[in-house]
Amino acid sequence: MPEFTVKVYVRRKEGVLDPEGNTIAGAIASIGYKGISSVRTGKIFIIRLEAPSADSARKDMEKVADKLLSNPIIEDYTVTVEQV
Amino acid sequence: MPEFTVKVYVRRKEGVLDPEGNTIAGAIASIGYKGISSVRTGKIFIIRLEAPSADSARKDMEKVADKLLSNPIIEDYTVTVEQV
Repeated sequence: MPEFTVKVYVRRKEGVLDPEGNTIAGAIASIGYKGISSVRTGKIFIIRLEAPSADSARKDMEKVADKLLSNPIIEDYTVTVEQV
Repeated sequence: MPEFTVKVYVRRKEGVLDPEGNTIAGAIASIGYKGISSVRTGKIFIIRLEAPSADSARKDMEKVADKLLSNPIIEDYTVTVEQV
């Protein structure tokens, strides 16, 4: 079966507070970089898998993103698929 | 000054163990998705800032990625810049 690399990007929805991002924004300013208006944080999951097709890999990993990798109440995700 | 969105992707270098990724790979298999060969985890930082140019935003945020956002011993980062 062909092998794919699926990348799942998970980030907080617009409007959801990001205290880690705010702390980092303060830290960046404190080492001398001005002009930062916001920092938002997120996660990446890079999944290598065998699947019958890119479409099937995407559908399966979208379900995984929804069930395991994100909290759909406060987070959005995007999924990209590349054949290896 | 123009405003930019800088995205910093931080991930473990090849060969560095990723216990969180291994746990997730096991969890994905346990809910019925077979064929996973590996899961690697990483972080994204989405930084909004004002800067004189895209080049200056990139250079500054590369230094920030190196000093604050990553551990260069075990992690690699990539930086992308888009004008808002």
